[in-house]
Amino acid sequence: MTHSDVVRVVAFGGGHGLSASLRALRLLRQQWSRCPQRRELDVTAVVTVGDDGGSSGRLRAERGGLPPGDLRQALVALADVDEPARDLSAGLFQYRFDGDGDLSGHAVGNLLLHGLMEMLGDSVAALDHAAGMLGCCGRVLPMSRQEVQIEADVLGADPTRPDEVVVVRGQHAVALTGGEVQRVRLRPAQPSACGEVLAAVEAADWLIFGPGSWFTSVIPHLLVPDLAAAVAASRAKRLVTLNLAAEKETHGLSLPDHLAALTRYLPALRVDVVLADGKAVGDPEPVNHAAESLGARLSLAPVAASDGSPRHDPAALAIALEAVLGPP
Amino acid sequence: MTHSDVVRVVAFGGGHGLSASLRALRLLRQQWSRCPQRRELDVTAVVTVGDDGGSSGRLRAERGGLPPGDLRQALVALADVDEPARDLSAGLFQYRFDGDGDLSGHAVGNLLLHGLMEMLGDSVAALDHAAGMLGCCGRVLPMSRQEVQIEADVLGADPTRPDEVVVVRGQHAVALTGGEVQRVRLRPAQPSACGEVLAAVEAADWLIFGPGSWFTSVIPHLLVPDLAAAVAASRAKRLVTLNLAAEKETHGLSLPDHLAALTRYLPALRVDVVLADGKAVGDPEPVNHAAESLGARLSLAPVAASDGSPRHDPAALAIALEAVLGPP
Repeated sequence: MTHSDVVRVVAFGGGHGLSASLRALRLLRQQWSRCPQRRELDVTAVVTVGDDGGSSGRLRAERGGLPPGDLRQALVALADVDEPARDLSAGLFQYRFDGDGDLSGHAVGNLLLHGLMEMLGDSVAALDHAAGMLGCCGRVLPMSRQEVQIEADVLGADPTRPDEVVVVRGQHAVALTGGEVQRVRLRPAQPSACGEVLAAVEAADWLIFGPGSWFTSVIPHLLVPDLAAAVAASRAKRLVTLNLAAEKETHGLSLPDHLAALTRYLPALRVDVVLADGKAVGDPEPVNHAAESLGARLSLAPVAASDGSPRHDPAALAIALEAVLGPP
Repeated sequence: MTHSDVVRVVAFGGGHGLSASLRALRLLRQQWSRCPQRRELDVTAVVTVGDDGGSSGRLRAERGGLPPGDLRQALVALADVDEPARDLSAGLFQYRFDGDGDLSGHAVGNLLLHGLMEMLGDSVAALDHAAGMLGCCGRVLPMSRQEVQIEADVLGADPTRPDEVVVVRGQHAVALTGGEVQRVRLRPAQPSACGEVLAAVEAADWLIFGPGSWFTSVIPHLLVPDLAAAVAASRAKRLVTLNLAAEKETHGLSLPDHLAALTRYLPALRVDVVLADGKAVGDPEPVNHAAESLGARLSLAPVAASDGSPRHDPAALAIALEAVLGPP
C-alpha cells in the first residue's frame, strides 16, 4: 500500500440497512482522512429501486419514475452533517409532512428528488445534484434506471391456506408477507443495470452486500442480469454483512440460510468476508460453515445498536469495517 | 465615497415586479464587483406575504404558514445562476409539477420552502437557509412573519352593479377584480413587521418601491404600521420604480395616480427619485409634476423588455439603477 491509496467500495442495499452501512463508511472515511497514511475511501451506494410503499409508492403510482425514498435515505447517510447548513438540508430531506392533506406522509426530500428526476429526465444526474446539495462524501446510484417491481412466490401467504404458494406482488407486500418467501423475481424480469453502477463495480476494491431486507433490498441486485454478471466478474473482494434479526420476509430463515440464498440467485458468487454480530450469531459453527462454503472467513464483531433494536450501530460497524477493509 | 463603500438597498414588492428589480440589482452588484472602485451592493428583498392564489394559496389553506411563491421568486432572482449547480437548484425551485395529481401545480421550491418553514418554525431562518442553498447575493425577508390577508373596497366589482362598493377579500381576488380599487387593507389590520426588515430599513441607503402590482404587492408594505413608521423615519433615499402598463387591479389608474396612491397610504412618504420608462410615460409633464409633489426628480430610461411585454428588462433596469444609485 502506498501513502495515497484509494479504496473503492460499492455498497448494495435498500433502506435502513444500507443507510447503516453508509453511515459507517462515512465515519471510517473521516477517520482515515485524519490519519497520516491518508488512505482515501471512495464510496458508491447502489440502491434497490423496487419500493412501492408509503410516500415513494404514492409518487410512483401518481407520477411514475423511480421511488425516491431509499435513494433519499442513502444520500442523507452520506451527507456532510458536520457542516451546519448541510445538516439542516439533510434534516429538510428527511422532514415528513404530517396531517391528512395532499402532502401528508411525503418527505420533502422525496418531493425534491422526484422533481429533480422529472426535470432532468435522468435519475443519475438528479442524484448527483442532490448529493452536491448535501455535500455527500460519495455517490448514490439506482441499481437500474428502469422502474422495476419485486414479486415473490410465497408459501402460506394466505394463513388460511398454509400449503399454497401464491405470487405476492410489490416490494411492500413481499416485505410484509407472513408466509415463506420461496423465490423472488423482478418485473420486468431483466431490467438493464445502471451503467454507472457497472463501472463502479468494475473499478471496485470491495463490494458490500447487506445488511438489509434480504429478499427485497439485497438479493434484487443479483436479479439484474448485467449487474449480476459484473459482480461475478469483478476482481473486487466481497463482504457480506449479515442482519441482526429476522424480519417478516425472512421469518424462519437462519443466518446460514441467508448466505445460501445469495448463491442460489448468483451461483458464481464468491465471498471473502462474512461480517456478523457475535450475539446475533450465537453458536458460530453453522454460520462459519456456510461462510466457508462461499470461500469466506467469518468475522464476528459487536455491531448492534446499544438500545437493543435490531439495527447496526454506525460507529461500531465502522470499527468492524476498518478491520475488514484496513491494511492487512 | 471611499473605495470600500457598501450601498445598502432594500427592495419592496411581491412577485414578478420585485423579481425584475432583484435581477437588476444582482447584475449591478456583479458589475460593481468587477470595478476597481469595489463598491459593494448589499441587497435585502422584502416580500408581501398576502398571496392566496395558486400553489401558495393551496399550501396556506391546507397547512397554514406564509405563502411561499413570491418568496421563492425573490430567492431565485438573487440566486447565483452563473454557477452551474446553483443554476440547477434555482431551476428545481421553479420546476412546477404538471398533471392532475396531489402535487400538480406546486413548484418544488414552494414545497421545499414550506417544509423548511414548518420544520424550523421560523420563516426568516428558513429563507436564510434557502438563500444559502441557492448562493443568493442578498437576503429575502417577509414583510411580516404573520399570516396576512389583503382585502379591498372595490367600486363596481360586480359588473351588474357598477355603482356599488363591495369588499373583495384575498390578494388573488383583488388582483383580478374588474372594478375600481378604492381602498386596500390588511387582515389582521395591524400585523407586526418582521424585525429583520425594520433593521434593514434603518440601515439602508436606498429603499426601492415597485415595480409590481400596486395595490397587492407594493402598497401592502405601507399598511404594516411599524414598517410604515420605519420607512418614514429612515434616513435612506427612496426610489419608486413605476410600472410599464396598468394591470387589472390598477385599470384606469394613471402613473401620477400610482404616485398619489403611495402618499395616500403613507402621507409622510418623501421620495427622491421616480424611475419610469419614457415610452410608458408618454408626455412626461404629469408624471414629473406628481414626482415633484413627492419631492422627487423623474428619471426616464428605457427599461421595458424588448419583446413588447409589460415587463422590466433586468439588464436595462440595472443600467437605470446604476445611474440612480451610482456615485453622484
